[in-house]
Amino acid sequence: MTKTSNRQILLATRPNGMARLSDFDIVERDIPTPKEGEVLLRNMLISMDPYQRNLMGNGSSELPPMDLGTPMSGPTVAVVEESNNPDFSKGDFVQTWTGWQDYAVSDGSDLRKLDPDAAPLSTALSVLGHTGLTAWVGMTKYLDDKPGGTFVVSAAAGSVGSMIAQMAKLRGHRVVGIAGGPAKCASLTDEIGVDAAIDYKADDFIAQLAAAVPDGVDRFFDNVGDYMFEAVMPHFNLNAQAVICGTIAGYSDTELPERRDHLPLLLNLILYRFVEVRGFSILDHLGSYPDFLAEAAPWVAEGKIKYSEEFIDDFEKIPETFLTLFEGGNTGKLIARLG
Amino acid sequence: MTKTSNRQILLATRPNGMARLSDFDIVERDIPTPKEGEVLLRNMLISMDPYQRNLMGNGSSELPPMDLGTPMSGPTVAVVEESNNPDFSKGDFVQTWTGWQDYAVSDGSDLRKLDPDAAPLSTALSVLGHTGLTAWVGMTKYLDDKPGGTFVVSAAAGSVGSMIAQMAKLRGHRVVGIAGGPAKCASLTDEIGVDAAIDYKADDFIAQLAAAVPDGVDRFFDNVGDYMFEAVMPHFNLNAQAVICGTIAGYSDTELPERRDHLPLLLNLILYRFVEVRGFSILDHLGSYPDFLAEAAPWVAEGKIKYSEEFIDDFEKIPETFLTLFEGGNTGKLIARLG
Repeated sequence: MTKTSNRQILLATRPNGMARLSDFDIVERDIPTPKEGEVLLRNMLISMDPYQRNLMGNGSSELPPMDLGTPMSGPTVAVVEESNNPDFSKGDFVQTWTGWQDYAVSDGSDLRKLDPDAAPLSTALSVLGHTGLTAWVGMTKYLDDKPGGTFVVSAAAGSVGSMIAQMAKLRGHRVVGIAGGPAKCASLTDEIGVDAAIDYKADDFIAQLAAAVPDGVDRFFDNVGDYMFEAVMPHFNLNAQAVICGTIAGYSDTELPERRDHLPLLLNLILYRFVEVRGFSILDHLGSYPDFLAEAAPWVAEGKIKYSEEFIDDFEKIPETFLTLFEGGNTGKLIARLG
Repeated sequence: MTKTSNRQILLATRPNGMARLSDFDIVERDIPTPKEGEVLLRNMLISMDPYQRNLMGNGSSELPPMDLGTPMSGPTVAVVEESNNPDFSKGDFVQTWTGWQDYAVSDGSDLRKLDPDAAPLSTALSVLGHTGLTAWVGMTKYLDDKPGGTFVVSAAAGSVGSMIAQMAKLRGHRVVGIAGGPAKCASLTDEIGVDAAIDYKADDFIAQLAAAVPDGVDRFFDNVGDYMFEAVMPHFNLNAQAVICGTIAGYSDTELPERRDHLPLLLNLILYRFVEVRGFSILDHLGSYPDFLAEAAPWVAEGKIKYSEEFIDDFEKIPETFLTLFEGGNTGKLIARLG
């Protein structure tokens, strides 16, 4: 397949609050020419991720904001179309970060070669990509193994949460998954294989949760924060560990919820039950990719870890599909499949 | 010196709320006789500690409640009066846990020999005892060394806090100490040698704190919790670490402060700044005593770590002196000195 121009989706304006379609521009540019030592890449799969919203605005604590008028950045799977770099050949498949466009050049330093026979290429953006790495790092580096304990996962039907839930089962924990609505809870029980699924939208969520953790909570992987953490924390056992991987609201000091202050209670739990609560930066662990793949790729190949992906095939629909990420409802990893 | 009876201060009733004088009974009993393999110990120094209040009631997460009608338990320094154990000789000085009485027997398993020429015996209950060990473990095991960062200590004039502040200085941190009132703050600056002392009782505490940490906070050793933690946490830098070593109030769910809920804000800080907040159990680290003493004893001998002790000489005054611990105002470690 040969195209004659490079479609790009640019960041046109920085969103104020929710991102909108008008924040993006679709343009056609010339296909870039690789210099000595560079390769020309054609994007085959483009990932849509919530973190990209942060980079459209002020950036994150890890990454600077995207530049206005440049293609949206983000993880991709590409094929090498031309190579002036001895480490890569035409036809090589790579995972890289070329963003929302058809073509890009690279000096090879940001390319990770993929074996299309080992796993579907799309998994390099989902269960065997940064999503899976996030789950694997959170589990292996920060939630010390203690099989037999009770392991709680919130947003357990999501892409990170479902991997955490399945890894926790493989490691011998008793797993309680929390998700929104009966359909997601049924998939947790039937497909993911948790020991108990709790619907946080149910009227008796607090009581259901208490009934599901009769021996307390030893490990908590939280993708929600806020009321979710407050519901789980009273059940912390001695030496409980919690990882915060996501929160639902970017509260500032003045917007804090008008309910009793639960922070002093958490500090008492931390003090008297020797609890640890932490976040982590995935950028500190990119060197763990080989270890992660060595453990997780066989799980995926053997069907021990299930995952979900949702594809679109229309490049122009990437912006509007991206915006659906912020309306809830997605369960699989969102990927655009090009040509 | 030979006594003919064993004075004991018994736990007479479990306190409800604040402990009171009527919760204690002072009695005289026979001096116990050591069996084969045992030693007879005479207490020389008796420590009074806040944690003993917990054991008078329901116990702590680490230790069960004391039994009614038995001597108050707690750390002591004793001398061996008679020995039927080959590992100990008459006249040996030991740190042990014989509590509020004149005499006790031991099989030797809970005795740590002391060298009275290496350091004053009282330091085995203060800066070189469990207080110092708590500070040393918190610092060396949980607050990874990162010299040059900003290190904040609350209750920095207290026995644990002042040791933390001095250790942090020795390790090359910039140290900000928080204490209550101008006198304690002056001692922090003049004696402990912190880089900045902040009076949390001052009207402009929040502004003073902000001015004292222009480059943010990298490490926080908190002995207060509650409003104190909430004042410090907005200043957390990336990868900040906090240890909770004490809190001022035993809040339950229904008693939580009626102000906006700060917990979601902390969870966001943990997520986006990769913060770690934790407690720890000193009982997990009793095996570190030799490492602790190897590092800290020279500091004390060379005057690099200053410490404060307050003595009473009247056994009968132990209960009322113990109660002053809960009124504030003490700065040194409280020790009863017997005969």
